[in-house]
Amino acid sequence: MKPFHAYFQSINGNDTYPLDEVIYRSKVDGSLLEVHHDRDALAERSPDEWKKLFAERRMSFKPADMSGVWSKREMVLPEIPEEDIVTLREGWSPLFDAQALAKEIGLKKLWVKLCGNSHTGSFKDLGMTVLVSQVNSMIKRGKPIDAVACASTGDTSAALSAFTAKAGIPSIVFLPRGKTSVAQLIQPISNGSIVLALDTDFDGCMKIVQQVTADNRIYLANSMNSLRVEGQKTISPEICQELGWNVPDTVIIPGGNLGNVSALAKGFDDCLAMGLIDKKPRIVLAQAENANPFFQAYQRGFDKLVPVHAKKTLASAIQIGNPVSYPKAERAIKNYNGIVIDVSEDELANAAERADKIGLYACPHTGVALGALLKLRAQGAIDKDEEVVVISTAHGLKFTEFKVAYHKQELEGISAKYANPIFEAPAELGPVMDILQKEMANRRR
Amino acid sequence: MKPFHAYFQSINGNDTYPLDEVIYRSKVDGSLLEVHHDRDALAERSPDEWKKLFAERRMSFKPADMSGVWSKREMVLPEIPEEDIVTLREGWSPLFDAQALAKEIGLKKLWVKLCGNSHTGSFKDLGMTVLVSQVNSMIKRGKPIDAVACASTGDTSAALSAFTAKAGIPSIVFLPRGKTSVAQLIQPISNGSIVLALDTDFDGCMKIVQQVTADNRIYLANSMNSLRVEGQKTISPEICQELGWNVPDTVIIPGGNLGNVSALAKGFDDCLAMGLIDKKPRIVLAQAENANPFFQAYQRGFDKLVPVHAKKTLASAIQIGNPVSYPKAERAIKNYNGIVIDVSEDELANAAERADKIGLYACPHTGVALGALLKLRAQGAIDKDEEVVVISTAHGLKFTEFKVAYHKQELEGISAKYANPIFEAPAELGPVMDILQKEMANRRR
Repeated sequence: MKPFHAYFQSINGNDTYPLDEVIYRSKVDGSLLEVHHDRDALAERSPDEWKKLFAERRMSFKPADMSGVWSKREMVLPEIPEEDIVTLREGWSPLFDAQALAKEIGLKKLWVKLCGNSHTGSFKDLGMTVLVSQVNSMIKRGKPIDAVACASTGDTSAALSAFTAKAGIPSIVFLPRGKTSVAQLIQPISNGSIVLALDTDFDGCMKIVQQVTADNRIYLANSMNSLRVEGQKTISPEICQELGWNVPDTVIIPGGNLGNVSALAKGFDDCLAMGLIDKKPRIVLAQAENANPFFQAYQRGFDKLVPVHAKKTLASAIQIGNPVSYPKAERAIKNYNGIVIDVSEDELANAAERADKIGLYACPHTGVALGALLKLRAQGAIDKDEEVVVISTAHGLKFTEFKVAYHKQELEGISAKYANPIFEAPAELGPVMDILQKEMANRRR
Repeated sequence: MKPFHAYFQSINGNDTYPLDEVIYRSKVDGSLLEVHHDRDALAERSPDEWKKLFAERRMSFKPADMSGVWSKREMVLPEIPEEDIVTLREGWSPLFDAQALAKEIGLKKLWVKLCGNSHTGSFKDLGMTVLVSQVNSMIKRGKPIDAVACASTGDTSAALSAFTAKAGIPSIVFLPRGKTSVAQLIQPISNGSIVLALDTDFDGCMKIVQQVTADNRIYLANSMNSLRVEGQKTISPEICQELGWNVPDTVIIPGGNLGNVSALAKGFDDCLAMGLIDKKPRIVLAQAENANPFFQAYQRGFDKLVPVHAKKTLASAIQIGNPVSYPKAERAIKNYNGIVIDVSEDELANAAERADKIGLYACPHTGVALGALLKLRAQGAIDKDEEVVVISTAHGLKFTEFKVAYHKQELEGISAKYANPIFEAPAELGPVMDILQKEMANRRR
């Protein structure tokens, strides 16, 4: 049998690098890298053998087998020693059966993949387990790496700090002084990251991170690092496996920096190459109107990326005007018969809260994807006979302020159709029952 | 084969009631009920057959099999039709390997069972899936139930509202007007519960709930409802199954109303009766010093419960002076060679933040249990050769304010030993590297 093997390769050239090298971009032309796998080696096992292996790992209680990411480890980092893996039981997040909403909008099947029901509350755990495991493995084999750093103030730094804390590796988070609150940073602070507030803006922080990581003793965990894609892509085989190795007709995912949609497509690419599935889903990328450079490029036939000034959006994690993974995302949309769509603040907020009425607790980014579903279904671009999966990227518990403001009807420019008021009453049975009878009738489905 | 069967029975008498009856206390003497199972029927299957069945269900993608609770359904509600089950994939929460902390305190093995890594962010999902499934089943078979109600403003109402929203059953939450914030209630508001703010205090709300539910058309979801225990108890077989059907030496759980420790013991009772395990763990119940009526009773040799005025504690969900499940908890501690201990606000806060340094994100209640571990280990009451499981009851994301205040050192009376400051610096490589080198050295383990 051929041994499994993977390496970095430039997306625009043939230059390759070992995964043990500390490298983020092509040395030839500075383009993005991606992890390539020896697909011949993977294809030596039959699809049925792979499916049997993946099924058996679900029964196991070994840490690597219980992880959604590492249960597919031959597709992720095939050469890492199992004991070097740093896992917080990421993956195997619930595939929420949203049939009540499917019925309302006239759709055969609808699931919501709850990637935010995870250790740090967002899908970033999927990619970070791979990055931190690889760093941990390099350190164990004597590579001189002192810490891992990033400049994010959100989900990425939360995931970075949790996984490095688990591994006992120092981590560093840079942020612009006076522009973020302690509440935004409380996960990395709690997990013991070294948090530096610099007298500059966000771009200035990125510049410093790059300087600090230039001599390769501090490892860069930002989103251009292609190791993270290898973890994130496992949502695709995971969804198919849960559906009995069937492929949904359409998968809808929100996008800002566009790494996640690239990962989704790469996951399906791998499944096709290994014979695990035999058809492609359509991929829908959903953006917020206020930060929609990819949608604009799509409308122009993908001539090129024209960076925009991203305006404020409730979907704060995708408020990005110059997405780093544009080339990979363009390829993903072209390869998967894709659609790019944008939704307004009103649409995303109402879509999130509509979904909560059937038991979800959707973050605004999930609202972007759900809003796209409602819009495409209304337009007929998604057919009533389709089976659809919506990717939910974070837990609603990270967005309490959004939800409070929505239900208080305090979100400017948003008509909160699903706002749920608190009823005030005296502590007497009569008036209480009057309210209850009226409202129970309203809520019965 | 005898059919599996379960029914309500008074804890103090022999009066029994069918599970389809809407009943919360004994009709004879008002004492608590508990669900009894036909253990002869359960024992007709050998331990190996049960273990094989439970192992096989881990491979399945059927909703009931994927739930930690319903994968043990013969021990929970054996007669419920599978299609009536309302599940949000509760259970099978991560058993976090806290070996780094075990090493620090000189302990053979330490795991933290992260029950808060769940749909609504707390262990309450485990019990609520059972209660709402039973109600759903009764409604489907024509029982005239219009809604489910509770008076909680915290995790219970969040779980109630999510499961009823999934099932399409109206739910009702009562709270005292002006005494809770919208933020505390935002989960049930988002999930569409009917939320009533009454001109009274919390006891007044309980009185109204009991009036409203008196004619049995509105079902009471409060903690005296013994159906919830049947879900919560599944953490015990779940922990043992993950440990290869081995039993930890000690399990530490925080307690307020004391339903959870009762459930934990009942789970081990069932495992012993079915031959799944052959020894008992020791159970440690941890309380906050500020709300410690059970600890006080324990110190007096369990003469009787003397209700106390519960003072404010960071562990807000266990700020309870008159615990409803006292008799069951007393039995649990007596049967499981138990220890009851209390911890100060300083101890619980520092224990939570110490644990975060190895990758946890502990809520204050988990801090109570972790604080108890540190104290008992220091006293030698827990031996260095023990294998210990700590039960974490909620996700830290529900307690952002606590964590922010801790790291800002703004918690009165607490010396925040693990506070992690933000470092301010100019955007220049030299000063930044000076900070980094010093702090990286501090953090290296």
